[in-house]
Amino acid sequence: MADWQEITGGITAPKGYRAAGITAGLKPSGLPDLALIVSDVEAIASGVFTTSQVKAACVDYCRQRLQAKQSARAILCNAGQANAATGSQGIKDAEESAELLAKELNISPELILLASTGVIGQRIKMDALRNGIPKLIASLTDTGSDAAAGAIITTDLVTKSIALETTIGDRPVRIGGIAKGSGMIHPNMATMLAFVTCDAAVSSHLWQQMLTRAADRSFNSITVDGDTSTNDSLIALANGQSRTPAITEVGAESEKLEAMLTAVCQHLAKAIARDGEGATCLIEVQVTGAHDEQAARQIAKTIAGSSLVKSAIFGRDPNWGRIAAAAGRAGVPFEQENLQIQLGDFLLLDNGQPLPFDRAAASAYLKQAATGAYLQQDTVLISVKVGNGHGTGKAWGCDLSYDYVKINAEYTT
Amino acid sequence: MADWQEITGGITAPKGYRAAGITAGLKPSGLPDLALIVSDVEAIASGVFTTSQVKAACVDYCRQRLQAKQSARAILCNAGQANAATGSQGIKDAEESAELLAKELNISPELILLASTGVIGQRIKMDALRNGIPKLIASLTDTGSDAAAGAIITTDLVTKSIALETTIGDRPVRIGGIAKGSGMIHPNMATMLAFVTCDAAVSSHLWQQMLTRAADRSFNSITVDGDTSTNDSLIALANGQSRTPAITEVGAESEKLEAMLTAVCQHLAKAIARDGEGATCLIEVQVTGAHDEQAARQIAKTIAGSSLVKSAIFGRDPNWGRIAAAAGRAGVPFEQENLQIQLGDFLLLDNGQPLPFDRAAASAYLKQAATGAYLQQDTVLISVKVGNGHGTGKAWGCDLSYDYVKINAEYTT
Repeated sequence: MADWQEITGGITAPKGYRAAGITAGLKPSGLPDLALIVSDVEAIASGVFTTSQVKAACVDYCRQRLQAKQSARAILCNAGQANAATGSQGIKDAEESAELLAKELNISPELILLASTGVIGQRIKMDALRNGIPKLIASLTDTGSDAAAGAIITTDLVTKSIALETTIGDRPVRIGGIAKGSGMIHPNMATMLAFVTCDAAVSSHLWQQMLTRAADRSFNSITVDGDTSTNDSLIALANGQSRTPAITEVGAESEKLEAMLTAVCQHLAKAIARDGEGATCLIEVQVTGAHDEQAARQIAKTIAGSSLVKSAIFGRDPNWGRIAAAAGRAGVPFEQENLQIQLGDFLLLDNGQPLPFDRAAASAYLKQAATGAYLQQDTVLISVKVGNGHGTGKAWGCDLSYDYVKINAEYTT
Repeated sequence: MADWQEITGGITAPKGYRAAGITAGLKPSGLPDLALIVSDVEAIASGVFTTSQVKAACVDYCRQRLQAKQSARAILCNAGQANAATGSQGIKDAEESAELLAKELNISPELILLASTGVIGQRIKMDALRNGIPKLIASLTDTGSDAAAGAIITTDLVTKSIALETTIGDRPVRIGGIAKGSGMIHPNMATMLAFVTCDAAVSSHLWQQMLTRAADRSFNSITVDGDTSTNDSLIALANGQSRTPAITEVGAESEKLEAMLTAVCQHLAKAIARDGEGATCLIEVQVTGAHDEQAARQIAKTIAGSSLVKSAIFGRDPNWGRIAAAAGRAGVPFEQENLQIQLGDFLLLDNGQPLPFDRAAASAYLKQAATGAYLQQDTVLISVKVGNGHGTGKAWGCDLSYDYVKINAEYTT
């Protein structure tokens, strides 16, 4: 039983945050394309960024900023141009964006973090950005989460948002999050962005540790097509405005906060996986019995990312051979005599031996997921046991449909 | 300029080999399904096998055999049942197959190697195999390469075969090879098998080293859908029947032989990649300027395996952003300011900066590959430079089409 409840309000559910999203004219479509999140006070800030060698200017900017100072007041995000592979001019554009915003907010540019999503190789439309910033600031409200969530998406089918509440020292504490993912018509815009706000008081060191682990258990455990973006960014603020006791060391309270942070990140990550291009269902892979958590997650990710598994699920085909083959090539040693594979409630392989099962019923289970309620009954569960170790891990993906190829082949740069 | 010429004859082009392929009744289709390669004399034997944790019985069998003794007289290959995930009975079936063949050939079972391809989880139809072996032996001829090549394929669209000839000490030496790959309607049969024969005299230690490197530069550098099979096997025999001087140490002659072995393996590997499910063209990725060969190959493989790159090629879209993103996430450090990307003759990115280029002409280059002559003009060349290092590497793949999803989704186990 989870130790928290879902509340409304997204990233403005936690105390002391305002957000806004406007149309600044960066996207050709005329849809909202500029988002801002502001904390009333300086907040602890941590980030997890793309591991790609080809990085957007905003990623380099944030990494340097957070290395120098682990706090922030605001996150500015533009959609439309990725500002990646834009050379030295891209860096200048990023710096100018931060300076413009800082001036208008009357704070130091050091307290501003940046994110971009859009077409690789395109600079931010700086004129539109310059004109947009005053309007953006004027739009800030403590109910602005949905507006911000709508302005960071590119071609996602739905916005992604969540807020959870628990108690620390008998007082309420909240974490909110918004994200964008890879449900896109233009796959040059495959960036994954997530912004998390929290009103707990927590030390910067602990907050970064929590965020890194939560990212591993959520955003780093989803796979749509294996292509890590140049712009992937997860930024999390904690501003202490809940007035709860400061969490400065590992214990029951830090674990409670981390569990809720992980739940927020997992909700957003699953929403991104479910919104994968052409997807008809979410695939959740649970691996148990591995040596450690990382090994389990590695196997889970390999299965969730296998094109053969993904197209079998789309074909509503309970093809355990593809699951076994994907598990086997994950790079994690295990004894195949110990392998157990279950699809929903159907046990297909046990102790490495194929079992008879009701193929029609298993196929019906897969069919049903394609028509189930969003993020509730639309999940295909693959459970794999690889041994008797204590390592467990999960990963999420989506099925591979004709529409994936259609979307990706028919987009012209 | 290559130091060899192509000749006819496949695996029976080298001296002292016979081969056969027959219909034994293992495949439901009634197509040829049992192949045999026999060397007149005991040959040096080396193998490279799947790294999957889930392995077919024949893979375990060959590994153990070759660990004990690095020579062989015969390779028996059945198509139809993979004999993988078949438990202890699968091992017994493999051992019985070898004993049956050894008895009929009047040689020691220790000199027999085995390979299987087909549906995972299915035992070999042993009755059909038992009845087939005498007929198979009776069919052995020194022109039997095509028959063997036809009996190892499952749903490949074409057979894959090559033979090359060079000279060692002024006398002719030949290497032949046949392979099966992943051009399949039934992706449970995704096994990659390759058998190579050579009539040079070479020490067992050198032959294994050559084969391992050649495999890295060929079969381990292709990617169709990233799913390594449970049965992947490459077996190479060298029987000395060319009567050329024995190659026992590294030098000009060993390098010549290795270069030709690599060319044989690369031809077969490219044929497998080209025959990928639903493919309309071959993609060759050449990476230069990396720290070492392995790093270069890693980047090349990541690009060749990227679903976004593969579907862009199918869409005839010169989308360099996807190539840059794939290079960046390959796990190999490089400076993005040094990145150069070329598609055919079109330079798209240089020193990390996008260049103007003739988009229509670049798209026409991609279109042309889809109608070009098999393995000659049907290749899309992606050249990527990541720095000033001396490491170069190549990888091959194919485009991702609607038919890939159709084939994989509509197959029912």
